[in-house]
Amino acid sequence: MLKLFYAPGACSLAPHIALEEAGANFEAERIDLRAAQQKSPEYLAINPKGAVPALQTDRGVLTENPVILGWIAQTHPGADLAPAGDSFEYAVMQSFNTFLAASVHPNIGRLLFSRPPLEGDARQAAQDVAMGKLRLIEDKLFRGPWAMGERFTVADGYLCVFERWAAQAGLISDGSFPRMIDHLQRTQARPAVLRALEREGLEPI
Amino acid sequence: MLKLFYAPGACSLAPHIALEEAGANFEAERIDLRAAQQKSPEYLAINPKGAVPALQTDRGVLTENPVILGWIAQTHPGADLAPAGDSFEYAVMQSFNTFLAASVHPNIGRLLFSRPPLEGDARQAAQDVAMGKLRLIEDKLFRGPWAMGERFTVADGYLCVFERWAAQAGLISDGSFPRMIDHLQRTQARPAVLRALEREGLEPI
Repeated sequence: MLKLFYAPGACSLAPHIALEEAGANFEAERIDLRAAQQKSPEYLAINPKGAVPALQTDRGVLTENPVILGWIAQTHPGADLAPAGDSFEYAVMQSFNTFLAASVHPNIGRLLFSRPPLEGDARQAAQDVAMGKLRLIEDKLFRGPWAMGERFTVADGYLCVFERWAAQAGLISDGSFPRMIDHLQRTQARPAVLRALEREGLEPI
Repeated sequence: MLKLFYAPGACSLAPHIALEEAGANFEAERIDLRAAQQKSPEYLAINPKGAVPALQTDRGVLTENPVILGWIAQTHPGADLAPAGDSFEYAVMQSFNTFLAASVHPNIGRLLFSRPPLEGDARQAAQDVAMGKLRLIEDKLFRGPWAMGERFTVADGYLCVFERWAAQAGLISDGSFPRMIDHLQRTQARPAVLRALEREGLEPI
């Protein structure tokens, strides 16, 4: 059986949502980041990167969100969570997911989660970079009504993670980022998303 | 015809190598980062992210290295640049590429290319993070003799980019990272890689 290793509200929420949307048969194991469980010998034997998410499959463990998300979509074709039969449109979706992984996550993560917290010029510089990435999504990359257009895909659950982080930190609001806030609300109204949030002990925001 | 937008020695060297290894019919257009050409209206119309690489195809423009590399491999199956017929092994290769994009590139890039340069504790902290990512490749993720094992894949050209950056900055040496240095040398001895380096005006290191 599939097993997802996750931490509440971390970027592992994206594959958690995807597994629920796919109707997959899976277990979910919580990793306690405050206790540094992700650096324990037991967990490092599963994922030597010492991070969530990791998805245990019958072939081995997969890591990196774009890869896990694509794999869930491709192995559950009935759920229609990615463009099928069009390798270019599939690549566009994976480009969106990889932008979240490689540009949005590192920059917004550094702004919000650096310890000690960033201050002064360093904080302003990090905020400028992070806001630029979010602005690019709002104005250019987001097709609407869903990230990739007419249909919900695994990219929507992934985008929702960063919309939650950004909204909770006051970086985006209905006035400045109306498309992302609307997307966040519609995503969090989906039954599968609510199931994933509930399992993680989270509320829609 | 395919058209690659690149800057010499940037991470666009990875798809440049892949296109040469694939025997692809392509054009290469140099973008002058020192003149901020990547932020020009003409280039932003091609890639609104204002970055290289971008690959223009007959279906549209693709961005993000893992996606471009996967697309080159899949559309040139005769070149055998990715695991074929095994979606799990393909996902493992894309996980390696996504780790380079999402963890190695942002961290080594911040260490080497921040302007103004990082100093003091901030520099040490950035170096510790970057070195941890390189160490993970050397000790865990790199299968050998090529990144994914017995066969050269598009992941090898991508890894070579960061091996070049790290070796030039003195972060890795034959003593401390022997597998990566050996890999760098064998990669840079390949005729297709030498063609890409030459077009970019670079030498093997």
